Order: sequence, then structure tokens, then C-alpha cells
Amino acid sequence: MPRLRSWLQIDPISHFSMHNIPFGIISTPSSPQPRTAIAIGSYALDLHAFAQGNGFSKLSAIQPHQAVFSQPTLNAFAALGRPIHKVVREYLQSVLVRDGPFPDVLQQNEALQKEALLPLDQVKTHLPMQIGDYTDFYAGLNHAYNVGVLFRGPTNALQPNYKHLPVGYHGRASSVVVSGTPIRRPNGQILANPTAEKKVPILSPCKKLDIELELGCFVCKPNTMGQPISVDDAPDHLFGVVLMNDWSARDIQAWEYVPLGPFNSKNFATTISAWVVLMDALEPFKTTGLANDTPLLPYLDEKGRQSHYKIDLSFAITPNGGYTTSVAQTSATQLLFSFPQMLTHHTVGGCPFNVGDLMGSGTISGKTKEEKGALLEQSENGKEVVELADGVTRTFLEDGDTVSMTGHCGSESYGIVGFGDCIGRIEPAIDMKS
Amino acid sequence: MPRLRSWLQIDPISHFSMHNIPFGIISTPSSPQPRTAIAIGSYALDLHAFAQGNGFSKLSAIQPHQAVFSQPTLNAFAALGRPIHKVVREYLQSVLVRDGPFPDVLQQNEALQKEALLPLDQVKTHLPMQIGDYTDFYAGLNHAYNVGVLFRGPTNALQPNYKHLPVGYHGRASSVVVSGTPIRRPNGQILANPTAEKKVPILSPCKKLDIELELGCFVCKPNTMGQPISVDDAPDHLFGVVLMNDWSARDIQAWEYVPLGPFNSKNFATTISAWVVLMDALEPFKTTGLANDTPLLPYLDEKGRQSHYKIDLSFAITPNGGYTTSVAQTSATQLLFSFPQMLTHHTVGGCPFNVGDLMGSGTISGKTKEEKGALLEQSENGKEVVELADGVTRTFLEDGDTVSMTGHCGSESYGIVGFGDCIGRIEPAIDMKS
Repeated sequence: MPRLRSWLQIDPISHFSMHNIPFGIISTPSSPQPRTAIAIGSYALDLHAFAQGNGFSKLSAIQPHQAVFSQPTLNAFAALGRPIHKVVREYLQSVLVRDGPFPDVLQQNEALQKEALLPLDQVKTHLPMQIGDYTDFYAGLNHAYNVGVLFRGPTNALQPNYKHLPVGYHGRASSVVVSGTPIRRPNGQILANPTAEKKVPILSPCKKLDIELELGCFVCKPNTMGQPISVDDAPDHLFGVVLMNDWSARDIQAWEYVPLGPFNSKNFATTISAWVVLMDALEPFKTTGLANDTPLLPYLDEKGRQSHYKIDLSFAITPNGGYTTSVAQTSATQLLFSFPQMLTHHTVGGCPFNVGDLMGSGTISGKTKEEKGALLEQSENGKEVVELADGVTRTFLEDGDTVSMTGHCGSESYGIVGFGDCIGRIEPAIDMKS
Repeated sequence: MPRLRSWLQIDPISHFSMHNIPFGIISTPSSPQPRTAIAIGSYALDLHAFAQGNGFSKLSAIQPHQAVFSQPTLNAFAALGRPIHKVVREYLQSVLVRDGPFPDVLQQNEALQKEALLPLDQVKTHLPMQIGDYTDFYAGLNHAYNVGVLFRGPTNALQPNYKHLPVGYHGRASSVVVSGTPIRRPNGQILANPTAEKKVPILSPCKKLDIELELGCFVCKPNTMGQPISVDDAPDHLFGVVLMNDWSARDIQAWEYVPLGPFNSKNFATTISAWVVLMDALEPFKTTGLANDTPLLPYLDEKGRQSHYKIDLSFAITPNGGYTTSVAQTSATQLLFSFPQMLTHHTVGGCPFNVGDLMGSGTISGKTKEEKGALLEQSENGKEVVELADGVTRTFLEDGDTVSMTGHCGSESYGIVGFGDCIGRIEPAIDMKS
């Protein structure tokens, strides 16, 4: 595909090139009602204002549905389905492209530009979807292996089920927050002396606060309870992808998680990026994930279809008032199962999905230290320090640390399809004695 | 408290005595819009119609809020808070009581009776709340012990954390359904030969379909993310209680649940009773739960407060076309942790709750076979048969079986505070080969 250039000035390193057109929810001081926008270069194009100003006059398919852009979440737009997402995205590209077919819609319409084209740094972003249910998977093979080695040694690192199905657990939808939301260090039960034979818990601020570098995927098409979604149909049910930081309290997790899985160690916060990159924008970057040496049951078999994406991922830590250090760089190709496989497995017993439901990939790690997407792995559960700039070291997060995740496909020459910020700063725990 | 008698004819064995006044959502063929009602004897009192007909004219506190009764869920009513729930319930008792203060409101108002007083068997009930997040706990000590003995033997039956905190996991809100909804047997991965050293899964209809006899509790007051709810404040956050059947696929569970907990084995369906019994209605039946021989951390310590309820519970199975057998009878006093303790632990790290969020107690079992609230325990994981009437036996559920749970407090002489039906019938699994 040739590079698309806009009549708008777009920095070549912008995450929001003409090839992206991600959707989000914004508000402004003068217009505080949250509404739909796309990100393009250093602008947000307010689609509520754009629709009010007849911006969609040349796209008949969206005419009956323009009210979706005035909603405070993307759910109504998502529910219109992938064919509509595709024509809306392509229409917006045609409005924004240099020498395009519709210069009168926005390029030559200064009044509408003034209403609808807002500097990105002057808009507030909101949680893009109303999330009914949130599920977190564990499809990062290297992460699962690395964590398994830490706790069980290399021989039994992966459980017998791991390569047969995408292992996952139900997460907490109420604590999924948009990038930029401060993250309070949780209090919880931890063991005073984890290696002692007698297990005595104390109530304490988490001492092993961690991050997990993940992708999240939103669902746009529901299924009826009792009706599975086949792996061939699953792509039609996927709306778009975000970055996700599944904050984790490792000491709380170690004490609570047997036998029913992670609970308070995960439900205090999950951060996602503000802009949902549509599946169509990721199409040019399709690839395969990690090879699975275990034969899959037919319902999960994608028959070699490219259902992963070549997304470069990284995370960085900035101590309070300090320098930023990029701690890990990895790729979304380090997943053993794809989002269609996750959705298919999740629904094989009939579990119903609603529009806006969210699936996390699980932590994405490569094999080397600098590819590991969680501090648990980087520090070998606190035994090794992680070196930051200026002589600062970490095993886990300290108060005042800011964690920033980034992800992108493409290149400066093609145009970058990126996810923008996925950021959170650690606030001190509440004093439970007061 | 003396027995309250109504001018309405109420059968002494009705679950919906004057002492109950549970809230639910109903519709009728002539008025299909779901709306709020209470159950009283063999009637539903339609509160939308009652409000429209000036039924609340003598209760000024509810005047600004009457639109809540026209909503399709109880969330808006719940959000008004416990003091309002209390005055509305007591006002409705005063309208319905024999020789009460307001005979003109309904007793002498035949037009309003005709509009608002509907035979219960002619209304359809709906899921009473819009559930944001659903959490299932594991607070039934005997159940946890019985299951632990089956899988690990009596010495290590309970995990070291069990008595220190209410163990729980996040469930799937989208598959919580109202009593009467058919339950389709799930397909899923199970082991072809569970005892073989090489673990080979097959895709199969669940062969160990089970029930779990639980209570559910709805939340009516939110907390801000990052702000715990103390065990003293927790009761103000609780709206009311329902019966819950947490359907479980034991063979799917055994294969999938290590290390992240139950997933597809639980997310295909959870049934709750249609009528929410308010916390105020349960007040006269307060008692203590099981004694905990492990000292609790202060944040969970209720200091002996009576925060459990003397609710008699049972479940019965009716094979297709066969007789009904009551399989187990137990009591809600067989819980180690109370709903206030569950909510306090759930929020100690800052997890936010929204109005309508649901907590399940975990399976409630006594110590003897006839007190065990799941077939897993009754049949010792399929090794012993459960005898039903007419020579029929079960280890787990068969297609066409109807499972019915019941629960009540009080007595015929005082008036019964009961939960009505919590019923589901098993439909055959979908044929995955077609």
C-alpha cells in the first residue's frame, strides 16, 4: 500500500498517521460532554462536531447512525459492526488525504476545522468503552515459562494445559482506567515471612508492585448465551486493540492465588491506552505468532492463518523527578494464541459476550532480560536489580514512579500505526491505621 | 416483633409474607416494559403502576424519586440507599397491613388494585439488577474442606490462606441469569483419561455438570477507586440477598483451573432468584456464622457482631418427567465469612464497586452427606451415587434434569421471609461437529 499523505501537517514519528485513524472519547473545557473523536497527527477530530457540521454528508452508510458519535463511549459505534467501521475509517482517510476527493468537507471548510479539529494536547481523553466484562489471558508463552521457572523450576515451568488452550481468568471491569489515571499502591494481606513454615499474614502496603505489558482487544459483536463463536467467525467480533498495563501486586498474589486464581493482586487497577486502533488499521501488519508444538483441537485450529500482529512493544520507568529508562522492548508476535483463538475458547461453552467486553493478551515477553514485560521476570522476583538511568535501581515499583508503555507498527517511511500513551504514576498506599 | 397480617389473603406458607416485601423486575403480556414490583403473597404489586396511581402519596421521602420504579432494573432504586429502602419497605407494609393507617391508598381503591396488583403466576420476572461485576467467594468452610479432602486428603484439605481471608475469584457477569432460564450443558476441553500420565484433552460436552448452592448479595453504594470500605461501613453498602446456583463443569474445571482459577467451567451460567430480599427484611434473623479458630487481622474483625443470617437452604432435582427429590438441606450459618467481610476484603486494596455488583457466598454445605450443597461433594466426585425418588440415581446432572433451590427464614406462625424459586433445567449440549 502506498503511503497516504494528508493536507494536515503530520510529524513522521506521530503514532497517528493517515494509516491509523484510531477512535477514542474526548472532552474539552469548553465542551465537557464526552464524545467520539479520532486521533490524526497532533489533532483530535471531534466526530460529534464533524457530524453536526455535515462532515459525513458524502457517506450515506453512516447517515442513519450519526448519533453514535455523540455518545460518551464507543460502544454504539462499535456495535455498528466491522463493515461500518471500515467505511467510516476509509471515508475519514479520504477527507484527510492530500488531493483527495472531498476537499470541501474539511480542508476548505475553515468553520468546521475550527469546530472539530482540536489540538490533541488540549483534549482530555476518557475510558473509550463501557466494559461489561474483562478477561485476562496468559498467552505470552515466554512470560508463562519465565514465571514458571521462578516458582517451579525449568522442568515443570508450563502447566500441562498451557499449550492446549489459552489459559485465562476473569478480571475486574470496574477498575479498568484510561491512560494517565494515577494508580494507588494497594494494601493487602502479604506474608510477614514468606519462607517460614508457619504462614502468618500481615496487612501491609504491597511491597512487590509490578506491571504487565499486554495488549487488550475490545469486542464489537455479541453472541447469544449458549452459542459458541467459531475461530473463523471470531475476527468479525473484534473491534480494536489497545495497550494494557495489568498492574499486579506480586506479594498479595503469592498469598491469595491458590486455589482460585489472582484476585486483589489484580483488581485495584488496569490501565489501557485511550485510542482504540481498529482491526482494519492493523491488517497490513498481520503475521503469525509463536509456533505451537502441541497439536490443537480443531475448534482452536486457525490452519496457519495470520492472526497476530507485528507490533513493537516497550515499557519505560521514570522515577519521581528522574530520568526515563526504557526497560524492555518486545513484540506482540511473542504470543502463543491470537485474539480470535481467545474469543473462540472463551465462548466454546456458551459464555455470552457483549459489545465493549475486553480481553487482555497476558504479559508479552521475549526470552532475554531486555525483552521481559514484567518486573517479576526482570528482577527474578526481587533477586536481581533492574538498572535505570543515573545509577537508580529497582526490583519492583516505588511510589512516584511513572510507568509508560508504547506500541506501534509500521515505520516513518510508511506511516506509523501506534497506540499513543499508556501511562500511570504510583501514589502511596492509604494509611490503614488512620 | 408481632406477626403482621395483611388485608390481602396470604397463604401462611408463602415465601412472600408481610415481613418480606422483596423487590424484583416484572413484565406482563399487556405491558411488556420491564418495571419494578414487590412480591406479596400470591401477588406482584407493580410499583410503576402504584406510583402512577398516586400510591406513594403518603410517603414524601420517595416523591422526587418515583421514576426509579419505571426502570427496567433495580439499580436506580438500590442507589437511593438503605435509609430509603427502609422507609419504602415499611410504607408498603403499612399500605398492605390489616387495619393499617392508609386504607384509602390501595385496600379501598379498587381501580388501583386492578392496575397494580397482579397475580404472581401471570407476570414474567427478569434479571433484577444490571450487574457490572460479579465475584464469587468460597466462604462455605465445610464445602472448601470437603472438596479439599477429595483432591488433597484430610491433612491439607484447606489452603494456608483459607481462614485468614475470604478466598474469592472474579466471575462472569454476562452469564448471570434469572431463575427459570434454561441452562445449556457446556462443551469444553476435558481429559480423555484423567488418570493417565500423558494429559490429552478432547472437546466434549461436560460429563460432570454440577450445581453450587449459594447466596448472592447485591451492592447498593459505590466506593471510589483506591478507597477501601471498612467492615463497620460495609453493611450500608449492601442492598439485598438472592439465592444463587453457580453451575459448574467439574471436568472442564479440573483441566483448566491451575494456575489462574476456574474459567469456562463457571462462565456458561449462574442462576439467581428473581426477588431481592432487602437487608432490612433479614435483620430479625441475624446470627453468627461458623466460629473461626484463626485470629483475624483487625480490618476483617467484626468483633462478634451478628452479620450472618439463619436462612434454611435446600436443593432438589427433578429428572425429566420424574419425581422431585430434595437432595440437600443446609443453612446459611455454615459460612466462615459474612458479606460485610467479603466486601471489606474485596476493597482493601482499593477495588471499586458500582451499584448492582454481585457477590456470591460460595457453596454452602454442612458436614453430613444430606447437608452438602454440590453434587461433587454428594457423589465424592462421581464415586458414590446420589439416590433420587423412584430408584433413579445421579452422580452429576443429566440432560432434562431440573434443579430447584429454595431458601427461607422465619416460620408459618411468624410469617416466612423466603426467596422464591431459583430454578434451571439442563438442555443438551450443542453438537460441535455440525
